[in-house]
Amino acid sequence: MPDALLRHPFMSQTALAECHDQAMVQAMLAFELALAEVQEAHGAVPQGASAEMRRCLESHPFDSAAIAAGIASGGNAAIPFVKQARAALPDELKRYWHMGATSQDVIDSALMLLLKPRLASLDALLLRCRAAAIELMTAHERTVMVGRTLMQQALPMTFGVKVAHWAIGLEQARRRLAQVELPVQFGGAVGVHSGWDEQGLDFMGALAERLELAAPVLPWHTNRQPIHALGTALDATAGAAEKLALDISLLTQTEVGEVAEPSAPGMGESSSMPHKRNPVRCAMIRGAMRQVHGYTTVLLNAAAQPLERGLGEWHAEWSPLVDSALLLEGALEQAATLLEGLEVNPEAMRRNLAATGGGIMAEPVSRLLAPVLAPVLGQDAAKRISAEAAETARLQGIPYAEALETHAEVKAEVGGKLEVEALRQATDPALYLGSSQAQVQRAMAWLQRE
Amino acid sequence: MPDALLRHPFMSQTALAECHDQAMVQAMLAFELALAEVQEAHGAVPQGASAEMRRCLESHPFDSAAIAAGIASGGNAAIPFVKQARAALPDELKRYWHMGATSQDVIDSALMLLLKPRLASLDALLLRCRAAAIELMTAHERTVMVGRTLMQQALPMTFGVKVAHWAIGLEQARRRLAQVELPVQFGGAVGVHSGWDEQGLDFMGALAERLELAAPVLPWHTNRQPIHALGTALDATAGAAEKLALDISLLTQTEVGEVAEPSAPGMGESSSMPHKRNPVRCAMIRGAMRQVHGYTTVLLNAAAQPLERGLGEWHAEWSPLVDSALLLEGALEQAATLLEGLEVNPEAMRRNLAATGGGIMAEPVSRLLAPVLAPVLGQDAAKRISAEAAETARLQGIPYAEALETHAEVKAEVGGKLEVEALRQATDPALYLGSSQAQVQRAMAWLQRE
Amino acid sequence: MPDALLRHPFMSQTALAECHDQAMVQAMLAFELALAEVQEAHGAVPQGASAEMRRCLESHPFDSAAIAAGIASGGNAAIPFVKQARAALPDELKRYWHMGATSQDVIDSALMLLLKPRLASLDALLLRCRAAAIELMTAHERTVMVGRTLMQQALPMTFGVKVAHWAIGLEQARRRLAQVELPVQFGGAVGVHSGWDEQGLDFMGALAERLELAAPVLPWHTNRQPIHALGTALDATAGAAEKLALDISLLTQTEVGEVAEPSAPGMGESSSMPHKRNPVRCAMIRGAMRQVHGYTTVLLNAAAQPLERGLGEWHAEWSPLVDSALLLEGALEQAATLLEGLEVNPEAMRRNLAATGGGIMAEPVSRLLAPVLAPVLGQDAAKRISAEAAETARLQGIPYAEALETHAEVKAEVGGKLEVEALRQATDPALYLGSSQAQVQRAMAWLQRE
Amino acid sequence: MPDALLRHPFMSQTALAECHDQAMVQAMLAFELALAEVQEAHGAVPQGASAEMRRCLESHPFDSAAIAAGIASGGNAAIPFVKQARAALPDELKRYWHMGATSQDVIDSALMLLLKPRLASLDALLLRCRAAAIELMTAHERTVMVGRTLMQQALPMTFGVKVAHWAIGLEQARRRLAQVELPVQFGGAVGVHSGWDEQGLDFMGALAERLELAAPVLPWHTNRQPIHALGTALDATAGAAEKLALDISLLTQTEVGEVAEPSAPGMGESSSMPHKRNPVRCAMIRGAMRQVHGYTTVLLNAAAQPLERGLGEWHAEWSPLVDSALLLEGALEQAATLLEGLEVNPEAMRRNLAATGGGIMAEPVSRLLAPVLAPVLGQDAAKRISAEAAETARLQGIPYAEALETHAEVKAEVGGKLEVEALRQATDPALYLGSSQAQVQRAMAWLQRE
Repeated sequence: MPDALLRHPFMSQTALAECHDQAMVQAMLAFELALAEVQEAHGAVPQGASAEMRRCLESHPFDSAAIAAGIASGGNAAIPFVKQARAALPDELKRYWHMGATSQDVIDSALMLLLKPRLASLDALLLRCRAAAIELMTAHERTVMVGRTLMQQALPMTFGVKVAHWAIGLEQARRRLAQVELPVQFGGAVGVHSGWDEQGLDFMGALAERLELAAPVLPWHTNRQPIHALGTALDATAGAAEKLALDISLLTQTEVGEVAEPSAPGMGESSSMPHKRNPVRCAMIRGAMRQVHGYTTVLLNAAAQPLERGLGEWHAEWSPLVDSALLLEGALEQAATLLEGLEVNPEAMRRNLAATGGGIMAEPVSRLLAPVLAPVLGQDAAKRISAEAAETARLQGIPYAEALETHAEVKAEVGGKLEVEALRQATDPALYLGSSQAQVQRAMAWLQRE
Repeated sequence: MPDALLRHPFMSQTALAECHDQAMVQAMLAFELALAEVQEAHGAVPQGASAEMRRCLESHPFDSAAIAAGIASGGNAAIPFVKQARAALPDELKRYWHMGATSQDVIDSALMLLLKPRLASLDALLLRCRAAAIELMTAHERTVMVGRTLMQQALPMTFGVKVAHWAIGLEQARRRLAQVELPVQFGGAVGVHSGWDEQGLDFMGALAERLELAAPVLPWHTNRQPIHALGTALDATAGAAEKLALDISLLTQTEVGEVAEPSAPGMGESSSMPHKRNPVRCAMIRGAMRQVHGYTTVLLNAAAQPLERGLGEWHAEWSPLVDSALLLEGALEQAATLLEGLEVNPEAMRRNLAATGGGIMAEPVSRLLAPVLAPVLGQDAAKRISAEAAETARLQGIPYAEALETHAEVKAEVGGKLEVEALRQATDPALYLGSSQAQVQRAMAWLQRE
Repeated sequence: MPDALLRHPFMSQTALAECHDQAMVQAMLAFELALAEVQEAHGAVPQGASAEMRRCLESHPFDSAAIAAGIASGGNAAIPFVKQARAALPDELKRYWHMGATSQDVIDSALMLLLKPRLASLDALLLRCRAAAIELMTAHERTVMVGRTLMQQALPMTFGVKVAHWAIGLEQARRRLAQVELPVQFGGAVGVHSGWDEQGLDFMGALAERLELAAPVLPWHTNRQPIHALGTALDATAGAAEKLALDISLLTQTEVGEVAEPSAPGMGESSSMPHKRNPVRCAMIRGAMRQVHGYTTVLLNAAAQPLERGLGEWHAEWSPLVDSALLLEGALEQAATLLEGLEVNPEAMRRNLAATGGGIMAEPVSRLLAPVLAPVLGQDAAKRISAEAAETARLQGIPYAEALETHAEVKAEVGGKLEVEALRQATDPALYLGSSQAQVQRAMAWLQRE
Repeated sequence: MPDALLRHPFMSQTALAECHDQAMVQAMLAFELALAEVQEAHGAVPQGASAEMRRCLESHPFDSAAIAAGIASGGNAAIPFVKQARAALPDELKRYWHMGATSQDVIDSALMLLLKPRLASLDALLLRCRAAAIELMTAHERTVMVGRTLMQQALPMTFGVKVAHWAIGLEQARRRLAQVELPVQFGGAVGVHSGWDEQGLDFMGALAERLELAAPVLPWHTNRQPIHALGTALDATAGAAEKLALDISLLTQTEVGEVAEPSAPGMGESSSMPHKRNPVRCAMIRGAMRQVHGYTTVLLNAAAQPLERGLGEWHAEWSPLVDSALLLEGALEQAATLLEGLEVNPEAMRRNLAATGGGIMAEPVSRLLAPVLAPVLGQDAAKRISAEAAETARLQGIPYAEALETHAEVKAEVGGKLEVEALRQATDPALYLGSSQAQVQRAMAWLQRE
């Protein structure tokens, strides 16, 4: 697979530099050494044995290619790793190596160790996004723009409130991710600590503590709730990042132009079309997050695993889970950069607000006209007249207020019951922002609460 | 779609009886009446208006077919419902109807109202499963059976601990579901309470309280984190139910026969094969849960919705979300019945434990022999000899202990260093159960903690 | 489930009127009667028996609610249906009823019978789309618009060629769907026609012929390639329809306005915002097609079924498969309506072409300037200058050609080596349409080939 | 990502050795050189230019790490590749490089070139599977075993016919894959060969011929039907391989033991449990194929791409598509090995046939008894008595025929109307194989037809 050209560009390069085959080997090693230490502390292994193991193996040059080659016969990396490590131990220690553990104990725990710094990194990136979003919200608390539903202009809002909605999604995802537990795995061949009796559970607890992983209620070889919780929390975050990228993509369209990705030398340039600045970061986020959704479906469909060990269901989890984390980290780096450097164009927002000749204000106008016109012209008159005037404004290129004032039926009423000033105000988007500002305040408080 | 024949059989009939078109209409009505009441309480609607609305509409015979027919032009049920209801109001109240609300406010809130009793029902079913599991765990705390990994016999365990693992999965899912919030939706056309200023947020909070739904931070028209959290929590529960059904399916196989679905007249009978008792409940659970996984992928792929309203992404959520809940409720009814009435066959478990001529005990035997044989015959002797004796036992149909005692190389050692009694004990599965009992105790405590 | 309000709006009403529980009952009946006829023709059933069965059952008032209620104990509708039908037969015929068949033979065949008219209807709708697309292509063969990549304006093209690309996708999907075979199912309990010897295969072939279904190589109870082929062909068509809806959604945005959904009374109107016309048909298509993608994943994950009968995998197929067909039919009705009545606004297309001050023409200009400027000013001069002039044009609101002519460095060269006329032509989008017209011609030929 | 330890073990090592970053670079190069050659042949590039380009670049040491690093700013590998290659060309050729092409032309075409040998390899592996299956079918045409539905013993069949059903699924998938077209991509910036007029289509056709790819009707930048057809055909094959692995997993269970994976030194051995032989190949196949299903859902959800270029939808396809091919190739290598070396145990099949005391023959017995007993004892007597006798046989461990002969009610009838010999025959599974043999013959003919 042409990884460097097709897969890695969506991923965090920092993460890729940390999360590779040797890191997996080291994570498996960490598990086995901790196990020996725990067992020694419980008197199951001679004093000093675990320190000697650590001495022998800590800087042992593991041959991950040989481990990889050994996977074919057993179906996972733990078996050849355990063999390779055992071979490097003095004879008298060999029998205490990997004692009472099964391959899945090693792999599951190693994966949790591998993912732990990734979750920390995701949390940090989400906090960066949050901080940047708060700044944008503050800066644009009163920046008026048009809200769009079904991608049609609807009514005015502020750019600040839009950012608040992004920020809440990202922060909800962050809090969900932060609650996910990464449990150690330790149960032995069939998950009941065969050969160890109750001590098995003590080992499990002590291992969790030593490896700084969560202690599960019981071994979870075929109870994949922890993987489901983790995978779907990653996917929720993917959804929040994707929402941001989708909105920015739409707002950067040539005809809309309300925001632009942060410019950087060469970034988003087209080789052949000099006028173009592609929303490349959005494309990368959206490309990555769609992959995450698919990878997550593997986890959903593998949550039920047979009896005491999956027959492929378990194996299927590895790549989708780790890939999802790495893709998400890449996407959040892009998202943070976007939020920190987003170019906002209030002028374009104002221009677009006027695109319908003020027609987007037809609803407040209609509300204003209704009590006056209804008694005379019937229930639907206000709606009809406000729409007619908007059409006139758009076609003749005149302000909506003017089109309204000069509408025959309005004219007949305005003298008496409608203030021209009220009419002018009802057609001013900047005066029709609803709870936009209050929402930004409320979001701010909520975002900073924790 | 032949619903009664192809879709409903997987669903809870109770749920189907409660969750239908008229219930959706009533849920939309509940939202609108609550809105009027809230607005009246805030002085936005004349005193008495909301009571009058309730009087007019509470027992109004809504024509859900007409509402359905009206969906085509607006794309959702709220629009024709609002029209139909408004037509039934006296003229002076019409303008206070659905005031400040948008279709998505109505639909999203109505869906949450519709799903609330479903979540309560799921919780009750999961508690039923938990109680039944605890009984099974207690009854079978010492029932010995073989553990199987990659669907091959591995080592002994108890049936009690297997049930404990099921119960933990189901209970983790229950706790996850219990944490899911069902928020009210109220934001108006573009989510900023156009026309209401800060009051909009007050309305939102008061609505949540009145409808006994959660109050969101802000309107969440295109921040679908709540839907993602709900949908994936349903899917997690689906995975836990599916795991149970998968294990029972495997354990009821003719050649295994360790458990059987609860018998009931006609249940699982084959029309043409009188000897057969099909695990029909498992098939229904597994059939339903696979659907849920697919429906959940719709939610994952629709989590990012454009700007202030989805253009299909929102619409795509409705069926998958409600179907998932109804399918899950059906599956949990089956799961509860299974756990409550499962026929457990300890005799078959014992028979299967002996299927390998005791070979599953080769590992403990090898551990017993190792310190004795290694110095004389080398590191691998114990493993080789324990395997050879198991093969002899299986071929000659003699007890494993006997095959071991009579093995030439063992014989040469036993006199001096191995107790015959120790050998007999090492070949007895019932003495090699690891932490099985301790796990059941620990699970029991955890399950009942709450 | 509130079907009429949440699910059916996305479906074809015609299809819903044809494809319901009673239709499923009739399809099961058609299978069983054909089986008896085939068996009679092969001498396995007494002469006249099948005619008598048909007489008894053809207008028998089957109670589909009772059949539905009977599903719980066997897990599918065939078992209670067969019982109900047998009860309606005279005693001497009872033993010839459902002879040699298994439930899955009945259900699979009935589903194929149910889906056959749906595929015919899908084909007809796709031909309607094709005809409408051809008309649009013809009408707009020379309608100039801007092509957009990553949703940014790129270079000119024609609306005709865009429609051609839609039409090819839809037609490729149609041809794929047309090749899908709907095979009869007939294999008996374990798929080997137990009790019938070779005759079983003859029955299978004769049944296929009589029911006008395809004859499979062998029974396919757990070889689900036919379902996979059908389900993914439906999904491919969903993708083609969704592409159309996505493009139209983007082109109808308020700021773009190049096309609009066909107007119809009330269609797409917003209850509160009179100026708005929502692309409701696009929303419905997109909402439905996203569901189809999720439903298809159920089929992908259920393609491998155990031994001679699925244990849930089979059951999981029913709803997703039938729903996908009905949703697709609904979406294609919308798509056909869109293509037949699409409002195209060449004026808006021209306006948008000018939005970048002609900047989209920078690439052809750069190609024109390159050979002239490169020798003097270096390789990159043409690109730089064409971009600078575009920026000038946009800022000063002057035509691009003018900005170029007056660019200092161009000026210095134009006199000698560049024709002003060539420059003007290079800045005219209508002269830079590449193979647009040729593509339309080629597409037309290919579309009409078959 | 720890690829060597977590991802590659599921993949074909041959494929991994051929399909990597440098191969992608070479595929992009092949596209660009072919483009120059085609353009030279059409007079658009000076004579000799393409040969000179080939001379310069064919053995140029492309720096794929630098290309990878350059992806960030443009979002795909084509942009930095084109730059790097151009820099290696003499100045006078630079302007003819990548002329008229867009990034997606390069990437899509290069992917098709990369996948072409993979499809060839998949075809060869499927032919290997077919040949091995035919041998198994021939060898086991009369090997009696029990058929199982819902994983319960049902009725007898042969192992030959089971293999035939596997083989048909695999061959249907092969024929579907063989029909998939890998089209060249060439359309320029917006897919209309800007700057080339009709010639663009000629270039496209000539490129297809030169690169031995299919010629599409038109450029397919955002008509992803070809990708959908390819991806779902890969997934169908995954389903067929997974079915094989699922069945073998079930048949190798300790309690069933009817087949075993081919033995090989160390293969499937458990490090701690000497008696165990894990179905590792099945686990690897099932683990890989579940990933493919998830990866395919990415393609389903990305089939609709906006306007003239995907904004992430396109980018999302790369990894899932190539991974699916590589995973499938790995799985088919395993499948071929399984089919070629499967250890079949007819003795165990016979033993399992007897597991129900002959109860699986209750249906044929009931059919035999029915005409005799019905007149005397009523319609249901035969079914009841055949079931009672089966239970007696199972409990007393006597042959079913004996239990039947000695059944009181049967006894009363046998003298007169039932031949003891007929009864014995009706209880012999080997005489109740239906069309098993005919199916094998028919499958054989069909498999070899092409």
